[in-house]
Amino acid sequence: MRNLFDLAGNDPDLRFSPYCWRTKYSLAHKGLPFDTTPWRFTEKDRIEETGQGRVPVLVDGDRTVHDSFQIALYLDETYTEEPALMPGASGKAAASFVQGWCDSQLLLALRNVLLLDVYNNIHPKDQAYFRESREKATGQTLEEVCKDRQGHLDHLHSTLKPAESTLSTNKFLGGDQPNFSDYILFGSLMWAHCICTDETLRPDNRVFDWFQTLLDLHDGLGRNAPTVRD
Amino acid sequence: MRNLFDLAGNDPDLRFSPYCWRTKYSLAHKGLPFDTTPWRFTEKDRIEETGQGRVPVLVDGDRTVHDSFQIALYLDETYTEEPALMPGASGKAAASFVQGWCDSQLLLALRNVLLLDVYNNIHPKDQAYFRESREKATGQTLEEVCKDRQGHLDHLHSTLKPAESTLSTNKFLGGDQPNFSDYILFGSLMWAHCICTDETLRPDNRVFDWFQTLLDLHDGLGRNAPTVRD
Repeated sequence: MRNLFDLAGNDPDLRFSPYCWRTKYSLAHKGLPFDTTPWRFTEKDRIEETGQGRVPVLVDGDRTVHDSFQIALYLDETYTEEPALMPGASGKAAASFVQGWCDSQLLLALRNVLLLDVYNNIHPKDQAYFRESREKATGQTLEEVCKDRQGHLDHLHSTLKPAESTLSTNKFLGGDQPNFSDYILFGSLMWAHCICTDETLRPDNRVFDWFQTLLDLHDGLGRNAPTVRD
Repeated sequence: MRNLFDLAGNDPDLRFSPYCWRTKYSLAHKGLPFDTTPWRFTEKDRIEETGQGRVPVLVDGDRTVHDSFQIALYLDETYTEEPALMPGASGKAAASFVQGWCDSQLLLALRNVLLLDVYNNIHPKDQAYFRESREKATGQTLEEVCKDRQGHLDHLHSTLKPAESTLSTNKFLGGDQPNFSDYILFGSLMWAHCICTDETLRPDNRVFDWFQTLLDLHDGLGRNAPTVRD
């Protein structure tokens, strides 16, 4: 059975990594069963063979692949009989654009809402590392980053506009069917869904309805995930 | 011959509308010859039959189509033997996402750099309309909007990140070949290229090289366009 190293909270069933969710939905899209192994930020030695310190890391037989985009490429190249995550060169470029937007803009907007929620729910052995690395990256304490919650939620709402306008005329970012572009955005928003004490998406935003649809996909893979609100 | 109503400056050969450039490159992509008619902001009566007051407006035989995205859809539906601008439902959704990003984020970043350049180069009969409508939209005078030019250029640079990361691993936003996603971004940047007194793109940004390639496409359609620097 293939295995995925999946970021976990203090509760080993709390899985909130935006990048790992991109990969879990990629595997499900291809119809590939997988197990997950809970992994914590400070367990770099367990994924040492990848030469880097982040998850997702997928072990598929004798292949080990890291980085959610590289894993999606690997799955399309290896399991060609299953529905493509990124069909053709244009599909790869389109997904790359959505990823560029998510990683440079949306995740920053989400980070300002979520950092303290993450800190409060990760394993105690991860907390010092997490605080130090994130405070160095932002130049502020976690408490300072998160203090203007309403302002950050307004900014998040406005940052979502490209997705909102796409979903006003398309069922999915992939068009009639979901593809890796959908899983990139969905994974990003699963970060908030799993770790945040309240709802971050506004019901009047079309992204909200699309997110509900995605939660139910693949036998409710997202819907069945434990959250801090359970 | 099909005809395009194309926004013009005081100099009728100065054509700087981001939306009209999207359509000119769409027509060229399909190999369809076209004439253009210079049009000014206040000439709403000349395009009255479209029920709205903006260009591009394409007159193709007995069909009149407005809105650059709708024109691209129309061209793909009508000229099916030519290379598609947005192949399939996934291609339409991908282009819609790039358009949502351009129109909600990139054009706002560009606007803060360009508003005064536009004002200074449009037809005198358009200037009062332009100043009033843009000052109402921004809540500031044109001079106030544009005063932190360096700050706006820095913000523009950071806003371009999704395109920059896509173009670091893809030749075009469309993958191996340009498609409507490329023309959406290119058109947006032609706004600056035509109307701005200095260079807005930084040479160390991959978008810069891609833009040079696009300028030369379709027999140098963009390269040959008059600019305020000529």
